[in-house]
Amino acid sequence: MNSIEIVGLVAGGLTTASFVPQVYKTYKSKSTDSLSLTMLIVFFIGIILWLIYGIYVNSIAMMLTNSITAVLSFILIYFKLRLK
Amino acid sequence: MNSIEIVGLVAGGLTTASFVPQVYKTYKSKSTDSLSLTMLIVFFIGIILWLIYGIYVNSIAMMLTNSITAVLSFILIYFKLRLK
Repeated sequence: MNSIEIVGLVAGGLTTASFVPQVYKTYKSKSTDSLSLTMLIVFFIGIILWLIYGIYVNSIAMMLTNSITAVLSFILIYFKLRLK
Repeated sequence: MNSIEIVGLVAGGLTTASFVPQVYKTYKSKSTDSLSLTMLIVFFIGIILWLIYGIYVNSIAMMLTNSITAVLSFILIYFKLRLK
């Protein structure tokens, strides 16, 4: 794995890590008032497109990061719909 | 511009767009209580690394998206520090 993929993996690790507390807070508080369903869906579609982009340009960092972020944002959408 | 760059630009447009309401809400409400400074900084560093990654792999979509997102997250950090 070349050095730039490592930069990508660290970048992805950080941006994904900064997303986890939001999911944890929502899980713990069982409150999704501060989350906008529209924005969650917009974000989710964007992440799926980044995942397709990453597959196309053969970027392990993008594939890994966007798969995890897609799962996390899907969980938030699930909470938002279920906790209405 | 090839089709996959267009996918990247749309992906970037969506993920950046989903970030704007958070900045607007923080600006309007002048409240940053729900934002964690640590997570904002972690996210900001991650975005800068993605920007470096985008430059390195010569991805216009990543360069454009991550520059805008870097500015937006820097604004949130500025609000967080100033509105303490």
